[in-house]
Amino acid sequence: MKRQKLVTLDVEGVLTPEVWVNLAIRTGIEALMVTTREVRDYDLLMKKRLAILDEHGLKMSDISAVLATLEPLGGARDFLDDLRADYSVVLLSDTFSQFAAPLMAQLGQPSILCHQLEVVDDHIDDFVIRIPDHKRRSVEAFRSLNYHVLSAGDAYNDLAMIRAANSGALFLAPDNVIDENPDLPAFDNYGDLRAWIDDAVADGGA
Amino acid sequence: MKRQKLVTLDVEGVLTPEVWVNLAIRTGIEALMVTTREVRDYDLLMKKRLAILDEHGLKMSDISAVLATLEPLGGARDFLDDLRADYSVVLLSDTFSQFAAPLMAQLGQPSILCHQLEVVDDHIDDFVIRIPDHKRRSVEAFRSLNYHVLSAGDAYNDLAMIRAANSGALFLAPDNVIDENPDLPAFDNYGDLRAWIDDAVADGGA
Repeated sequence: MKRQKLVTLDVEGVLTPEVWVNLAIRTGIEALMVTTREVRDYDLLMKKRLAILDEHGLKMSDISAVLATLEPLGGARDFLDDLRADYSVVLLSDTFSQFAAPLMAQLGQPSILCHQLEVVDDHIDDFVIRIPDHKRRSVEAFRSLNYHVLSAGDAYNDLAMIRAANSGALFLAPDNVIDENPDLPAFDNYGDLRAWIDDAVADGGA
Repeated sequence: MKRQKLVTLDVEGVLTPEVWVNLAIRTGIEALMVTTREVRDYDLLMKKRLAILDEHGLKMSDISAVLATLEPLGGARDFLDDLRADYSVVLLSDTFSQFAAPLMAQLGQPSILCHQLEVVDDHIDDFVIRIPDHKRRSVEAFRSLNYHVLSAGDAYNDLAMIRAANSGALFLAPDNVIDENPDLPAFDNYGDLRAWIDDAVADGGA
């Protein structure tokens, strides 16, 4: 008997556009373009981003309005709808629930585990990482429940999740991530990713 | 800062009708009415049920067709839609994925963790419990990810989940379950359940 499969997917770059980049583009605030490539320390980067939002007087509702104009990647909704009809699917993201909300509504409210912003009177006071390394820990938690976990993502912060899964793959990953992980299957369209999920052999124990 | 909430809900009796009871009613096979009240050993009960299906020549596709005529409880879809817009929600059920599928489609494909039937050439060969006591273990797994877990269910097989949660409640439970658990809040409509979820204080550690 084959074990039940559970699929975990990264969100930004896999199902939706990058949120901060699009926030920068749509607000015209170039300083928000800064990413972990320029500022390696994520905590420092987020503090910087929140300070920039404050400088420009941007409230949570302003940001929500901007994010509401973002759309999932082409084909993402259909891919996810079909996938959810056949498997348990959980999205694992390092974004914040308030940022994810407008996009999750457009994706049919899939389950997402992520972090949150502390918002008081429409002002973003702080950000709260629910637990460090939560993508990897989530995969391990689902494996402990005897699921065969399949995980796909595009970026460095997905590798721990992908490596912790029973079956892991890269999806729409940049060349450097693909080149540095030659043992991982890499896909660039939803059809191939779905075929890989369907074909993965889920025999054996956790 | 308050922690993020994650809600786990039982399915049959909470969001949907009881599957086996309705299968008995809709197929007219009275023997399928037998429940854990008559046969305490779940493994024995399931073996008996599968034997009854065989006796009557019922295949997986026949059962799926019957189950497709079942509908979620009144108000369940709206309750769940609204809840999923605001919280991570995972359904925890002791049913089988093939039985759940028609009802999950009507509920907008929420995430459900359950068991599965082994179906070969449209014949139900066997049933496979993914892991014993999976409702309790699932709650513990989500708590280990630093969620404040709220759980609600109606029956004896939900009590371990409800007791393992940070906040637990009974929903549409029979009187004996309510009477035997006087310390648990008990609700009989979705509005009250939702208010309890919103009001639960999620301070403090796991």
